[in-house]
Amino acid sequence: TLCLSRVWSMYNQLTYYCKRIRKELDNTVDFWLKYSHDTTHGGFFTCIGRDGKVYDELKYVWLQGRQVWMYCRLYRTMERFHKPEILEAAKAGGAFLRKFARVSGGSGGPWKCAFCLTRDGKALKVQRTVFSECFYIMAMDELSRVTGDKDMQLEAEQMMEQVIYWVRVDSSSLGRPQLPGEVPTNSMAVPMMLLCLVQQLTEGRGQEAAQKYGDLASWCVQQILQHIQRDGTAILENVSLEGAELPGCQGRLQNPGHALEAGWFLLQVSGEQQDEELQRTAINKFVELPYQDGWDKEHGGLFYFLDVDGHCPTQLEWNMKLWWPHCEALIAFLMAYNQTKKPQLLERFSQVYEYTFSHFPDAKSGEWFGYLTQEGKVALDFKGGPFKGKNIIAIHEISHNFPLDALKAYAG
Amino acid sequence: TLCLSRVWSMYNQLTYYCKRIRKELDNTVDFWLKYSHDTTHGGFFTCIGRDGKVYDELKYVWLQGRQVWMYCRLYRTMERFHKPEILEAAKAGGAFLRKFARVSGGSGGPWKCAFCLTRDGKALKVQRTVFSECFYIMAMDELSRVTGDKDMQLEAEQMMEQVIYWVRVDSSSLGRPQLPGEVPTNSMAVPMMLLCLVQQLTEGRGQEAAQKYGDLASWCVQQILQHIQRDGTAILENVSLEGAELPGCQGRLQNPGHALEAGWFLLQVSGEQQDEELQRTAINKFVELPYQDGWDKEHGGLFYFLDVDGHCPTQLEWNMKLWWPHCEALIAFLMAYNQTKKPQLLERFSQVYEYTFSHFPDAKSGEWFGYLTQEGKVALDFKGGPFKGKNIIAIHEISHNFPLDALKAYAG
Repeated sequence: TLCLSRVWSMYNQLTYYCKRIRKELDNTVDFWLKYSHDTTHGGFFTCIGRDGKVYDELKYVWLQGRQVWMYCRLYRTMERFHKPEILEAAKAGGAFLRKFARVSGGSGGPWKCAFCLTRDGKALKVQRTVFSECFYIMAMDELSRVTGDKDMQLEAEQMMEQVIYWVRVDSSSLGRPQLPGEVPTNSMAVPMMLLCLVQQLTEGRGQEAAQKYGDLASWCVQQILQHIQRDGTAILENVSLEGAELPGCQGRLQNPGHALEAGWFLLQVSGEQQDEELQRTAINKFVELPYQDGWDKEHGGLFYFLDVDGHCPTQLEWNMKLWWPHCEALIAFLMAYNQTKKPQLLERFSQVYEYTFSHFPDAKSGEWFGYLTQEGKVALDFKGGPFKGKNIIAIHEISHNFPLDALKAYAG
Repeated sequence: TLCLSRVWSMYNQLTYYCKRIRKELDNTVDFWLKYSHDTTHGGFFTCIGRDGKVYDELKYVWLQGRQVWMYCRLYRTMERFHKPEILEAAKAGGAFLRKFARVSGGSGGPWKCAFCLTRDGKALKVQRTVFSECFYIMAMDELSRVTGDKDMQLEAEQMMEQVIYWVRVDSSSLGRPQLPGEVPTNSMAVPMMLLCLVQQLTEGRGQEAAQKYGDLASWCVQQILQHIQRDGTAILENVSLEGAELPGCQGRLQNPGHALEAGWFLLQVSGEQQDEELQRTAINKFVELPYQDGWDKEHGGLFYFLDVDGHCPTQLEWNMKLWWPHCEALIAFLMAYNQTKKPQLLERFSQVYEYTFSHFPDAKSGEWFGYLTQEGKVALDFKGGPFKGKNIIAIHEISHNFPLDALKAYAG
């Protein structure tokens, strides 16, 4: 147990963190409201330079979907963002997505979502994966919650059925030919993303929705748990469908940010279901372990990729420090603390916080840098790019998990 | 004009460079002879760690093709490598490629080459581009030259017809769906690669071969020259089919290593055709300009990617220093000197040499590192990876261009 003075000092420190995070969230929302809206063609610019200037007019669909989701979520759940301009921006983004994101799969195949669109909505690139569709679902479902549009909710659920079919039944209509040397793989990203969607589609919708996706949720949890390998000493990013380690680089690959993200997804489940064993597994294996292995002892920060046997990863960016794994770590430790009240989890949060907030925010122009060198220098200075959008998705989650009340009660 | 003492000092310096390069070539050939041969399944391991250990058994087809080509070229053109073990290794690699690299395009489509094979030759990944096929052609043609196998030469030429069809007539059977937002693009890599293949297929084969591919060669040169943009002040990596600048990041992208490589491909043509205007363009636009723009004034070395307007490229690896652009620069400056005898071109060679040889070779285990941080620290320490094979392709070209004889004659 903690002595009272330590609780107070922690409380003061967390009060400071909380204020800072609140400020970052406000600044970041301002940044995107100010610079990203395309009032001519609708939708959002996603390639935004350090100072807010659009450096490419392409519109990446993952980021369109996330921004719609984010605006709606802020509008719906945080009073100070319950403003007409945010709702209107979300609706405009949703209309653009709905009008342009879906492209025909060709030859009677199902509809796919594009990965990238031109400014006026023409499809430029389609990936043979399910992630554009997933972010489309996130956007449509959350938008339907603030507008009450039942058709839109239905559309999200129909797209969800398609994604489930691709993932669990037959992926051939994604367009990727099956090759004889390929080993069917359970990639962490897929069950993680689906679990996140289940949480989106069932939140606050009672027993019926929970039942509808209950089997899928269990399957996702079980698929995620298969990534615990090497007698529980490592999380590996890719495993076989039977949950065995795969040969070579692919099999040895670790992505600490992904593992931490999976960790807090599992903690959401363990919290809802009051499943203590799952909670323990989530914290020990998906939060503590990737943090221990993924943290750079020399320069601080989480590596992007690692090889469990210590070989050099083949990804050129393996040693870079990206904003999002740090956001995932902050959320994961805070959520883990909220569920367990173990002070060492707050200390970890504090360590990650110090690195994150001293390296990623851009004091000059607002928002965060996304990509640092191993040594912590800014390597790419844009605020939005093909894979980087608003970091407030993460900040928002942090705000919601912030255990100030809990601590206050504890300190009494 | 140079004073005699300066010529002598340059001669001495170049003699030293030449010896060092010869030594690197020997060491590097030894490295691959020792560590890369798969005597069980045939072909070459391509994922080889710092100390020669295979860290992944996958066999990347570009590198299989290049290694066959390299062994044959060394065997055929350099006396000290005219050894049975090198010929045998080349033949074994060629047999593996011929047996396993080609995969059916499906539904009666043409044969494609895989991008990546399992150790025992099962296709694991097929790219929807022409490059695997190009390296297959390089390998088969060069192997046919040392073995005298006319069927193999014919096979190379047939594959070449397929590649030409994809590039110049109809690319739809590559499997990439045409999307409404896509702008047909002239990417530097394609005409460069094809020009290289023309040189491979016509070398020493007289008028008939030159005529067969003459139109293609002119087309390649013209396509490459379209990349001179902004009133001759920049080489851009992607332009429209009409040779206009494209919008956004894609249009502003620069790849200095590619431009330098295109430079010496053009110099080969200008040398053969005694085309002084092409020579001037090649040197001024494709060698000097990318060197000036691409050289990192702070830390030395050539950047991987740049944006012509100074925006931050979106490629996470943009500021890394890769081995191959430096090899291309060395070859380009040496070839430019050989054709013009302008001493400042040798000085440039010397500058690139100093950076290259003080950063990339691994004094401990032989061969070169491939990937450095902007500051010149080794970022990935393997010797072979999905895109990195034997750097001796470049060293070999350097040896052949080495102007010692010219200088000697000059110095008297």
